[in-house]
Amino acid sequence: MTLDRPKLLEGLKTFLRIPSVSTLSEHKPDIQRAAEFVRDELRSAGLAAELIEGEGNPLVYGEWLGAPGKPTILFYGHYDVQPPDPLDEWKSPPFEPEVRGDDLFARGSADDKGQVYLQIKAVDGLLRRDGNLPVNVRFLVEGEEETGGEHIEAYVKSKPPRLHADAAVICDTEMFAPGLPTICIGLRGMAYCELLVEGANHDLHSGVYGGAAPNPIQAVAEILCALKDRQGRILIPGFYDRVQPPSPKERDAWASLPFDEKEYTEVEMGARELVGEPDVPLFERLWARPTVEVHGIRGGFTGEGAKTVIPARATAKISMRLVADQRPDEAAAQLRAAVRAATPKGVTAELKVLHTGAPSLTNPDNPYIRAAAEALKQTFGKETVYIRSGGSIPIVGVFDEYLGIPSVMMGFGLPDDNLHAPNEKFHLPNFYSGIEAIARYLEILGESY
Amino acid sequence: MTLDRPKLLEGLKTFLRIPSVSTLSEHKPDIQRAAEFVRDELRSAGLAAELIEGEGNPLVYGEWLGAPGKPTILFYGHYDVQPPDPLDEWKSPPFEPEVRGDDLFARGSADDKGQVYLQIKAVDGLLRRDGNLPVNVRFLVEGEEETGGEHIEAYVKSKPPRLHADAAVICDTEMFAPGLPTICIGLRGMAYCELLVEGANHDLHSGVYGGAAPNPIQAVAEILCALKDRQGRILIPGFYDRVQPPSPKERDAWASLPFDEKEYTEVEMGARELVGEPDVPLFERLWARPTVEVHGIRGGFTGEGAKTVIPARATAKISMRLVADQRPDEAAAQLRAAVRAATPKGVTAELKVLHTGAPSLTNPDNPYIRAAAEALKQTFGKETVYIRSGGSIPIVGVFDEYLGIPSVMMGFGLPDDNLHAPNEKFHLPNFYSGIEAIARYLEILGESY
Repeated sequence: MTLDRPKLLEGLKTFLRIPSVSTLSEHKPDIQRAAEFVRDELRSAGLAAELIEGEGNPLVYGEWLGAPGKPTILFYGHYDVQPPDPLDEWKSPPFEPEVRGDDLFARGSADDKGQVYLQIKAVDGLLRRDGNLPVNVRFLVEGEEETGGEHIEAYVKSKPPRLHADAAVICDTEMFAPGLPTICIGLRGMAYCELLVEGANHDLHSGVYGGAAPNPIQAVAEILCALKDRQGRILIPGFYDRVQPPSPKERDAWASLPFDEKEYTEVEMGARELVGEPDVPLFERLWARPTVEVHGIRGGFTGEGAKTVIPARATAKISMRLVADQRPDEAAAQLRAAVRAATPKGVTAELKVLHTGAPSLTNPDNPYIRAAAEALKQTFGKETVYIRSGGSIPIVGVFDEYLGIPSVMMGFGLPDDNLHAPNEKFHLPNFYSGIEAIARYLEILGESY
Repeated sequence: MTLDRPKLLEGLKTFLRIPSVSTLSEHKPDIQRAAEFVRDELRSAGLAAELIEGEGNPLVYGEWLGAPGKPTILFYGHYDVQPPDPLDEWKSPPFEPEVRGDDLFARGSADDKGQVYLQIKAVDGLLRRDGNLPVNVRFLVEGEEETGGEHIEAYVKSKPPRLHADAAVICDTEMFAPGLPTICIGLRGMAYCELLVEGANHDLHSGVYGGAAPNPIQAVAEILCALKDRQGRILIPGFYDRVQPPSPKERDAWASLPFDEKEYTEVEMGARELVGEPDVPLFERLWARPTVEVHGIRGGFTGEGAKTVIPARATAKISMRLVADQRPDEAAAQLRAAVRAATPKGVTAELKVLHTGAPSLTNPDNPYIRAAAEALKQTFGKETVYIRSGGSIPIVGVFDEYLGIPSVMMGFGLPDDNLHAPNEKFHLPNFYSGIEAIARYLEILGESY
């Protein structure tokens, strides 16, 4: 398949110029424009496409079902992007795409517009060349990924016939290293909670009452310390019971990934040293072990200077990253019980679950994964590696549970793409190779079935 | 002495309308106005008065020395107030004084403007009635009490001749119960610190890095839990070594104070139950035992909803209340060593001491204390009780050390005055009785010497 690279680049730039920031309501019209852009691109490729309106931002649906008897692939991606701030740290404006060297800089370039666009262009290329596709394809592109919206979940949970498929393909992850073809087979799930601890019904003076008054901040500290020890081992009873260890084969594969721990620690993370469960290798800690993490805490007086108050309340945001076979609702219940057991005298503690998502783990021997690995290998000229990701893509669990299909996560981002940060970029060689890899994937599937 | 109550009330209201919050730099002009108000009130009472400028907020000095051969009393108070936040919990605006029932509601009404004003008005009343005073008086009113500023300390430490006196009178404490005349003979000292914990040099995504990244909020929690156990026992090595237990006589007196623990807990504090060191009686915990208390904490994302950030830093405000014979600098060094020992892997912790003050304990047999007890007894018609206070008035230690004089702490606040909290109030009968008690005190001293 020959690629008209200048035209592909221009098309992607047009997509990136739409500031479809889903977390900011003033960008509502841009959200609509981005959805229509995707629909029109699907139509121009030769698919039937339309917007699915509902609660929240429109879904874009497209289909080409001209290969009866062949498998059906459901492509997933999102057309919304993160807010661009802090704006003054961008070298070129976030919605004026600029090529510098081999990279295209713009908000959404890697996450996820560039990867949505390459899916469409792979299908477009095959249809232009052959007049048909080797398999059936559907597209479902959403506009609320960055804002945790539930439109797509509600739609998928309704199990509409038009989502019938054999596998989903998600291009929203990254390659482990430049030039190294990568498939992500596992994601951590999540339960995000808010803790509210209350002591007296008003703030108290620490001189007058100190020694007798309950202190909600101290109580939050005691609860946090009861959830996890100083080495990073989680102390919540039952929490690790369902955790599946990675296979020896997976562990060996992770141990041989090309990796510079010093560079990762000091440059990428900007940290002094890595922490976490002793005797658990780094990638296992990040990908195959659950976490309990406090994201924010607030209580009492935090202004300039001194105020001797014992505050009436303190709050914290606490999440758990979960791994197979943990269950978010069960983990949240375990957390709630542990919080209750750790709540000291004199205060009440209330734990509210804000949202949850199941972990996912796909068998790498699944034929749809194996075909993807082969397509990537042929495109990049290197053996494909299987990794997991510590992050959470809730739709993967939803596809699994409601559509009964595996998700093939073949991503073309790179670790230094600055996702959710200033100067987001997409590596253009990955953009073009991604188009070829997806096209090759569909061909391999067409030949195998 | 007859009191023009409406005029006294109006005068106090005028004082309270000045938002002289010393912890907030935007109130600098209000600080100046409050200092000038006090100076002008002293002048209008018939004293020579002026501002003493220096580093920090002005001191107000006043004197009337027309009783040669008689003792000299140094009145101390402060014209600055605590910040009023949280504003939305005030029933009437904090700087618009409002009388409801027998109480005057405003920030600073009890702490300490109302009590400064009653000292001035007692002297004013005697001078108006008699044309002279039975003893010599000096006033030293500061504007940095709530912020731990060091202007007054530096000034007193220079031992200026104009501070020569036989005893200090401080009206900045409270009566043990309504109508029960009370002298405070002991105060806790204080060391107020700020803790800064830093992990990576930028916020990290908990999906990508959770399991390997240091979390400064968790580190603050671990440090707090290493300083104090769940029962309230302080774990800082050496911390209790210098603590003097109260005498059996003092313990007996405290045990017979009129006290309703249920009312104190549920109504005054608004708490479910009291906490603190097991097997130590309440008043001993509040007055004769040191504390470690966290006043505020901040870190990471605390807005609405969810953000999966591992923050780069977290801060906490931590103070220690100290009792005789603890030394603030030594205690701060013990705290610093304990923080260092408790700091987990991957983060740095920095402890900054914002201010310190020594604890104090006065012999109740001192003649200036005995005269005060008599004046209070005559005014309120009840035997005066001797208590201590858990709060800190650093100047008491400074007067003792540098001027060699005892401090007579006859306070007219009440336990439910909401000091440092929303809806601070001053009980107006105490305001008027306080004026009478101070006047009577000066008369008794004049008769005794």
